[in-house]
Amino acid sequence: MSLSLSRCVNGITPSATLAIDARAKALKAQGEHIIGFAAGEPDFPTPAYICEAAREALAKGITRYTPSSGTLELRRAICEKLSRDNGLAYTPGEIIVCNGAKHALLNACVAVLDPGDEVLLPAPCWVSYPEMIRMAGGTPVFVPTTEEENFAPSVAKLKAHLSLRTKAVIINSPSNPTGCIYEEALLAEIAAFAVENGLFVISDEIYEKLVYDGRRHVSIASLGDAIKAQTIVVNGLSKTYAMTGWRVGYAAGPGAVIEAMGAYQSHATSNPNSIAQYASVAALENGEECIRAMHDAFDARRKYMVARIEKMEDLSCITPYGAFYVMLNCTKILGRAYKGQVIKDTMAFSALLLDEAKVAVVPGDPFEAPGYCRLSYAINQADIETGLDAIEAFVKGLTP
Amino acid sequence: MSLSLSRCVNGITPSATLAIDARAKALKAQGEHIIGFAAGEPDFPTPAYICEAAREALAKGITRYTPSSGTLELRRAICEKLSRDNGLAYTPGEIIVCNGAKHALLNACVAVLDPGDEVLLPAPCWVSYPEMIRMAGGTPVFVPTTEEENFAPSVAKLKAHLSLRTKAVIINSPSNPTGCIYEEALLAEIAAFAVENGLFVISDEIYEKLVYDGRRHVSIASLGDAIKAQTIVVNGLSKTYAMTGWRVGYAAGPGAVIEAMGAYQSHATSNPNSIAQYASVAALENGEECIRAMHDAFDARRKYMVARIEKMEDLSCITPYGAFYVMLNCTKILGRAYKGQVIKDTMAFSALLLDEAKVAVVPGDPFEAPGYCRLSYAINQADIETGLDAIEAFVKGLTP
Repeated sequence: MSLSLSRCVNGITPSATLAIDARAKALKAQGEHIIGFAAGEPDFPTPAYICEAAREALAKGITRYTPSSGTLELRRAICEKLSRDNGLAYTPGEIIVCNGAKHALLNACVAVLDPGDEVLLPAPCWVSYPEMIRMAGGTPVFVPTTEEENFAPSVAKLKAHLSLRTKAVIINSPSNPTGCIYEEALLAEIAAFAVENGLFVISDEIYEKLVYDGRRHVSIASLGDAIKAQTIVVNGLSKTYAMTGWRVGYAAGPGAVIEAMGAYQSHATSNPNSIAQYASVAALENGEECIRAMHDAFDARRKYMVARIEKMEDLSCITPYGAFYVMLNCTKILGRAYKGQVIKDTMAFSALLLDEAKVAVVPGDPFEAPGYCRLSYAINQADIETGLDAIEAFVKGLTP
Repeated sequence: MSLSLSRCVNGITPSATLAIDARAKALKAQGEHIIGFAAGEPDFPTPAYICEAAREALAKGITRYTPSSGTLELRRAICEKLSRDNGLAYTPGEIIVCNGAKHALLNACVAVLDPGDEVLLPAPCWVSYPEMIRMAGGTPVFVPTTEEENFAPSVAKLKAHLSLRTKAVIINSPSNPTGCIYEEALLAEIAAFAVENGLFVISDEIYEKLVYDGRRHVSIASLGDAIKAQTIVVNGLSKTYAMTGWRVGYAAGPGAVIEAMGAYQSHATSNPNSIAQYASVAALENGEECIRAMHDAFDARRKYMVARIEKMEDLSCITPYGAFYVMLNCTKILGRAYKGQVIKDTMAFSALLLDEAKVAVVPGDPFEAPGYCRLSYAINQADIETGLDAIEAFVKGLTP
């Protein structure tokens, strides 16, 4: 035999954003001040009452193994949350707690995909979806959407990509990277499509609390018993409670699917951190005030950012109604040049922006969003202002 | 399509010990006092200085994403530990921090196994090894060992199970469930065999600090550059520092393998809990005194247990020199009957022991150890005494 690596890991695309991230860190290490619009996590600390619960867990010695699918207390608290917020009735046996929502999504893919199975993936989409589909042996089938459609897929488009191997569809509303929200009418159409064609729906609802301008988050599983029976709802504590580092996510779904995810997890990682689980119970039982405060801060920055970008000559964006991202439309400046260097795509644009304007943005290409950059507003207002000034000045200096 | 589960999850064997565990819990819920020899974790609390470090992390706001393969601080502390304790030189880029050693083992399997690849697995072995090999697409090839061999595989036996598809061998010294330690001479032979045949060695060293009677733990990777270049050393904080619930394990190995494991982990779970990582740095930098105290308590119980079992008429054990398990040889009582009910295997024996003697032990069959039961001494001395009394009395009451 040879000491070769597996085809599975050789097939993983190295994160295209990592190179930019590494370059940003190198510049910072050289003493440069870099404005970072790349953040994928709230810039707030974890609320004090949650940290207090973690201290309580330490004092109580909650440092042993828990059931590998999560403590009964936490699964009960999640059931209450799903009932209260989403009108969803689940029992603790239909819940699994994972090491973050990302892990819940991977477990879901592993539980339902066989090699060759296809998954419909509205694009632009989060970079980890196609990778985790492939890691589970499946094939991502991108369903492109446009800015004109508010980056939401019509059922006609989904249908056009359906095949005999289609096993599931992943939806993500509010969406990373687009900030788009699927309206209830669209969700009902997707539900009918999934039921009609016998597809699992994996619904990533991690940004559910970050919706603006009076929009409302709807979980597709709440639209009837038929769709609930084939939906895996994924959510977590990271974005809502500023708990990204704690790694607590969860899935709710049909008992057989959740049990299979649990069997896999029991041999893959065992339980998520016991202290974080204890703190998560406290987080879910309270926190409306903290959530509101973070929400309102994001909202104010969002409005500022959209208003600023709308005034720019060659850049634009549509108003995002969810998450904490703006999709900056850079299509007009592709083909222009900086000091003779032609900007052929958003990878080149973001690399130049970092080196020359000291601003870090996430290029859209890895998100299946060529021509766009993702700008996070999970950074402070002063940085947003300085950063947008720098972007505007940089773009003005480009030659046709 | 149908809403079927994947072959991967359908192939996972439901934990055979879970049924016994569920039954023990049900009896406890009914108010019965059950003596549990089933524990797979230290019965000590996490040492205070580690909990203090976790409080410090909370105070410092260490609640955000870390690099997905772990913080540089922790990877550096692991490098120092491997150098100090094991004579191994690694750089932080050759280290990945995972959600427990179990997770590091799965990541290692995923990184090196393609469908159909075979892994040599000395048996008796921990129940999760064959499952995670299968989850990664591989095939476990059991290499049976006997009590007379101290449950350590000779290279002749390994060779007899070698095929063109053999890709790796998993070793686990000190061993769960046998408590066996591989002598340095045997490790050197296994190293030569692996190098000669181009096999990865996945070396699970999670019990390294729990060795007794003057025995010494040796990491196979320390036996030369050639074997180090194809070994993935797996270890973690759980057993040594009584941190099972925290979920911090790690792997050290060739840069390309560790990088591949990191790419997989980045899309599967991201970083392990940030607070636990911070506390783990403190754990690794101190703690010799706490480790010694726990070690000595385990050692005293081990000696008591072995001495007691040696005096029993129809049960026996060899002296284990590592971990916190005794392999109880029950072969003499198989075929005997309790109130007319014939005990055909250790599954039946442990079920009866639980119901009739109120003692929980782990049957050996799921560990590829038919005829044996695993008794943990990670429980207090009084329970060990009462539990062994009850086992002895139960066995005396059996009819031939």
